Amino acid sequence: MTRLTLAIDAMGGDFGPCVTVPAALQALALHSQLQLLLIGDPAAITPLLAKADSAVKGRLQVIPAESVIASDAKPSQAIRHSRGSSMRIALEMVKEGKAQACVSAGNTGALMGLAKLLLKPLDGIERPALMTVLPHQQRGNTVVLDLGANVESDSAMLVQFAIMGAVMAEEVLAIEQPRVALLNIGHEETKGLHSIREAAEQLRASPQINYIGYLEGNDLLTGKADVLVCDGFVGNVTLKTLEGVVRMFLSLLKSSGEGKKRAWWMKLLGRWIKRRLAKRFGHLNPDQYNGACLLGLRGTVIKSHGAANQRAFAAAIEQAEQAVRRQVPERIAARLEAVLARSD
Amino acid sequence: MTRLTLAIDAMGGDFGPCVTVPAALQALALHSQLQLLLIGDPAAITPLLAKADSAVKGRLQVIPAESVIASDAKPSQAIRHSRGSSMRIALEMVKEGKAQACVSAGNTGALMGLAKLLLKPLDGIERPALMTVLPHQQRGNTVVLDLGANVESDSAMLVQFAIMGAVMAEEVLAIEQPRVALLNIGHEETKGLHSIREAAEQLRASPQINYIGYLEGNDLLTGKADVLVCDGFVGNVTLKTLEGVVRMFLSLLKSSGEGKKRAWWMKLLGRWIKRRLAKRFGHLNPDQYNGACLLGLRGTVIKSHGAANQRAFAAAIEQAEQAVRRQVPERIAARLEAVLARSD
Repeated sequence: MTRLTLAIDAMGGDFGPCVTVPAALQALALHSQLQLLLIGDPAAITPLLAKADSAVKGRLQVIPAESVIASDAKPSQAIRHSRGSSMRIALEMVKEGKAQACVSAGNTGALMGLAKLLLKPLDGIERPALMTVLPHQQRGNTVVLDLGANVESDSAMLVQFAIMGAVMAEEVLAIEQPRVALLNIGHEETKGLHSIREAAEQLRASPQINYIGYLEGNDLLTGKADVLVCDGFVGNVTLKTLEGVVRMFLSLLKSSGEGKKRAWWMKLLGRWIKRRLAKRFGHLNPDQYNGACLLGLRGTVIKSHGAANQRAFAAAIEQAEQAVRRQVPERIAARLEAVLARSD
Repeated sequence: MTRLTLAIDAMGGDFGPCVTVPAALQALALHSQLQLLLIGDPAAITPLLAKADSAVKGRLQVIPAESVIASDAKPSQAIRHSRGSSMRIALEMVKEGKAQACVSAGNTGALMGLAKLLLKPLDGIERPALMTVLPHQQRGNTVVLDLGANVESDSAMLVQFAIMGAVMAEEVLAIEQPRVALLNIGHEETKGLHSIREAAEQLRASPQINYIGYLEGNDLLTGKADVLVCDGFVGNVTLKTLEGVVRMFLSLLKSSGEGKKRAWWMKLLGRWIKRRLAKRFGHLNPDQYNGACLLGLRGTVIKSHGAANQRAFAAAIEQAEQAVRRQVPERIAARLEAVLARSD
């Protein structure tokens, strides 16, 4: 494996360096070929590096940034005043070839806008989309997009999301002829928003896409589709709903029955059974698949949850590493070229 | 308790009379003051009544209907050709005062359109909304609307949904000054769709509503709000996502570890612990809260899931009974009048 450098926006997210720095150290310890650029306020970052192993510290560089884009800032304004911010410098590192990908838990709208501005969309893509790979009930995976890069999407955008999602499923998950579905409020052709019905018509007419029709919210985890396409508002709410329910179940599973008076052997056995159940559901734990990939750009950008903990942010760094190794932007670009040439 | 008559669209839903008739018999056996009008094809309904108790059969009347509105029919066309259909006759029973409420598992768009046409919206309401009461983590309830009566909603509609939801929470769930939130993709004021931001501004300015701001998908079950307002598309996808995940957990809980070779006492104990866990999560089982109430009409209409099983359809009948007993439409009308008078 060759060396690989990632730029980390150390200031982004609800907890900033308190989460991003330990997660970065964790990723470095795990991957010996990884180098990280930590971008942010050195006064906030350096103290958190004190106890780190020197071998790990050797592959880490702190790059100062003067400012942070607030998570509640209006994207348009944030972008106008972004010069010198940790998020912008992280993206500039990718643009200048000093890093192969960038990870940020900061303001989604600003990240989307800045990434588009600095890294430019691929030919044939109007707007990038946030994509994640969700584990489903059949122990496979579903590519889901857009998760909130765009608040509203017209039919042309939905079709582009479908193409990018299909390429992801084919090239990265190695699924042949991935089944592509649109998320809607019913299976029937007449259902839903105009933009979705129009996108369905275009996808049905496109021989490059294995379009299978509409799916509903309850099919998110059933594995009926390899690629599930929706607009960014719906995708964001849906994914967060899913995460909320899964987290609630996992926490109930952990806590149920604790504190009650029972024989020691019953407590032990109960704990053992619950641990096995938690393991069985564990692959659905949102922390394990944190990190959405901003698809459709000439570079790799991973958006972490703002509320990510150390484990979750480390998973986002891992995603960035995987995306670079699997050459996601290059593969999407090549496939888009082929699809667009055929449809001309 | 006084006598109460409900009109049941016996032909609606994925399974028609096979589900609606046994559910109707179940409801009649449970509530001795209940009378049901089963509307549909007598040839399909009557055989299913053969084994019913005569005391129960005495409170049941089959009312013939010539046709059924298909679940995949385009609502506008379905409404034009609705005369003589089981759904329309069920609504006419309410209009004519022969029944106090109607329950249908049929085509949502057609039910919404026909109900609006026959029963008329309350003063101050543009479009009715589908509402359900979701159990949350704190063992309380959250009123959620719209769940799909309207595919798109402008800010005025969202504000009306908020008022109706607040009345529901106050009058029916007995929550004083219910906390009202809008479902959005972030907590920050600048986030989300234009219609949502505009509705937020209006709600913030309205002293009759205890508006607390935006909540995200992961807050659906946390109990942070008593009323959660969204447009019908988002509400439908969100609720179905939630139901899908809960069903998956409950089924995994049931099946996990089955079939493996283990000592009999371990199997027994394992089953006992899993049963206790299933009970703990049981209040979240979608079948127990099936049935969304179409709010904003001069009459009570309950929409059951199309895929409802007998237990779930019986829960929808139960909901209709409760809504009538609690005089939901009358209370909403009275409160709307007060709110609208104050805001004039």
